[in-house]
Amino acid sequence: MKPTASFVTLGARDVEVSRRFYIDGLGWTETLFVPGEVLFVQVAHGVLLSLFDIEKFAAEAPGLYRGPETAPISLGHLVDSDDEVARVLDQAAACGGRIVTPASRRDWGGITGYFADPDGYLWEIAHNPGFHVAADGTVLIGAE
Amino acid sequence: MKPTASFVTLGARDVEVSRRFYIDGLGWTETLFVPGEVLFVQVAHGVLLSLFDIEKFAAEAPGLYRGPETAPISLGHLVDSDDEVARVLDQAAACGGRIVTPASRRDWGGITGYFADPDGYLWEIAHNPGFHVAADGTVLIGAE
Repeated sequence: MKPTASFVTLGARDVEVSRRFYIDGLGWTETLFVPGEVLFVQVAHGVLLSLFDIEKFAAEAPGLYRGPETAPISLGHLVDSDDEVARVLDQAAACGGRIVTPASRRDWGGITGYFADPDGYLWEIAHNPGFHVAADGTVLIGAE
Repeated sequence: MKPTASFVTLGARDVEVSRRFYIDGLGWTETLFVPGEVLFVQVAHGVLLSLFDIEKFAAEAPGLYRGPETAPISLGHLVDSDDEVARVLDQAAACGGRIVTPASRRDWGGITGYFADPDGYLWEIAHNPGFHVAADGTVLIGAE
């Protein structure tokens, strides 16, 4: 098995609500939307975020948890300055997201904050000067 | 906020166990490993999978769920043939993964199966002839 992921799939309670947040709210472009089933949005080179109806998802992969708590996962979104972390969190909140932690200094030197989307999935907004992508796509992380 | 994600972060109960599965078992290369804290592995062009100690993760983003059920998320791994779906599932099982659903025909025409990693996170192994990545990295999905 090669070390590749081309989809990140999140179980969504209502894909119409997901669409209102990501497409209408944040202004992203959908790759494909199938009403009542799935919303695909591209989030990296060759990578789709999939908001997949939780009941249909559970039919494929039985036993998925879907309670009120937040799933132990986040999607990381990098920005270019400390100030932009707070601005993005504010934008998400204005679109119906929930700020979970405000912009905070982390031990590794950067600034991050978290918001939750309408299903509770976390996005970590980060200014990380140690994250670099080489011309061939390889990620280099500054030493801790 | 641009439509980009550069990290997918999953809360891990024990990052040493994650490392044994992904690095020692599947033979992947680590971008960075900080014992007791985090394992980074590159899974796409400019994208890292982060296995992050669940307690440290919850300290940054309070309220994470971490019970015995499976989180409502999967990572999608594409292969080139129907037969390869089953082979990858078998390989994951041989490394300590758990097969959740065997290779199965889906309504959209492809074949997928799921395994769970040591923390219960799902990987969907898929043969999807309708998934194409253009030279500039844009994903094109065949019409449903």
